[in-house]
Amino acid sequence: MEFTDVVDARRSVHDYADEDLDRETIEAIVEAATTMPSSYNLQPWEFLVLTEDADRERLREVAYGQAHVTDAPVAVVVLGNLDPAAHVDRVLDDQVEKGYRDEAGAAAARETIVGMREYPTAERRVWAAKSTSLAAMGLMLAARDRGVATCPIGGFDPEALHEAFDVPDGYEPVMLVTMGYPAADAADEERPRKLRRPVSEVVHYGSFDPDGGADGADGALAGTEATTDD
Amino acid sequence: MEFTDVVDARRSVHDYADEDLDRETIEAIVEAATTMPSSYNLQPWEFLVLTEDADRERLREVAYGQAHVTDAPVAVVVLGNLDPAAHVDRVLDDQVEKGYRDEAGAAAARETIVGMREYPTAERRVWAAKSTSLAAMGLMLAARDRGVATCPIGGFDPEALHEAFDVPDGYEPVMLVTMGYPAADAADEERPRKLRRPVSEVVHYGSFDPDGGADGADGALAGTEATTDD
Repeated sequence: MEFTDVVDARRSVHDYADEDLDRETIEAIVEAATTMPSSYNLQPWEFLVLTEDADRERLREVAYGQAHVTDAPVAVVVLGNLDPAAHVDRVLDDQVEKGYRDEAGAAAARETIVGMREYPTAERRVWAAKSTSLAAMGLMLAARDRGVATCPIGGFDPEALHEAFDVPDGYEPVMLVTMGYPAADAADEERPRKLRRPVSEVVHYGSFDPDGGADGADGALAGTEATTDD
Repeated sequence: MEFTDVVDARRSVHDYADEDLDRETIEAIVEAATTMPSSYNLQPWEFLVLTEDADRERLREVAYGQAHVTDAPVAVVVLGNLDPAAHVDRVLDDQVEKGYRDEAGAAAARETIVGMREYPTAERRVWAAKSTSLAAMGLMLAARDRGVATCPIGGFDPEALHEAFDVPDGYEPVMLVTMGYPAADAADEERPRKLRRPVSEVVHYGSFDPDGGADGADGALAGTEATTDD
């Protein structure tokens, strides 16, 4: 599909057709997700893919009973690795080999990355959430490109999820994503897209005033500080 | 462009052509980003767009001197709003109006969202990082679709950024993204793509063993727990 058509067509879909996704399709979608960028290219992501009904039943329980977790043929738990240095050696060796860094640059990066292990857990959680969410967005768009609908889910009990799937402590469940072909009459695809805050409100040129965007949306802000650089 | 071509072509680019981006292009890219999903569709994102040299000089200082911050014609600071309920009323009213929720469902969602204001800051930072990173990924792909290269930057001093651009405390700078047409000979576009962890390593069917993926990559894991559901 054209990129713009993928973006226009993507919705968070709750109604799925009674049709499985084959592993080839699932893995092609994940492969596209893995091409997304990440901090230092460290790729702190893992994809726990649940295709068995019993597994998605367990996931639904930790996701406060949300029905689309079991209605979709596939649910993916996108996990973030809280150890920034987990893949540091091969990631940096690769960058030296391909000319992205010289040896000195790689050594400095390695020192920084290994040092990040000492960051407070709160910082490493934010760090992992960012790179992992970039991949999750790639996953959802790549799915839509193949006619596969998705729904990201942030509402779940992380501790219960750790327990239900024996996820080690060093990994954070960042997001769940249901995946499957949409039902023919999926309401989410037929309704108008949900409201989006307009560009004029969310874009701020040069300085940021939370009460107004480029065009002074959300109030009469022409001439205020937020717009002086416009 | 075809979606798959956009994904294949996207790289983190450090060398930019000496050509400005017009506001129409910038805003079309941001508009695509705003169609990405977010927690409850709350869209906790703001885009501080720096097109003036002096502004990007200041940003470069807080980004540890990284040269592409000033070499690119545009740098975007993607900000996350730490107040989950900032846009709750119009977002939920819209969902009722368009049939996504009934009044009772909206009231329950509102209560949950307003309650999230009491979450510890650490949780709200992770929450904002997720939705905002989804939008950042949309931004980068939509840019590439228009021939515009990007580079996400996680390395910056958040406190210095707050100070340099008078960003209020309730907002978190989540990511910087440089944007511009790539230089004709941009090395990042000519080198082979940086290593990606293979799908066989990052996909885990049914259960998650950090030492192995679907095919028992990263070691000889056939027959271990990680692969029993395969």
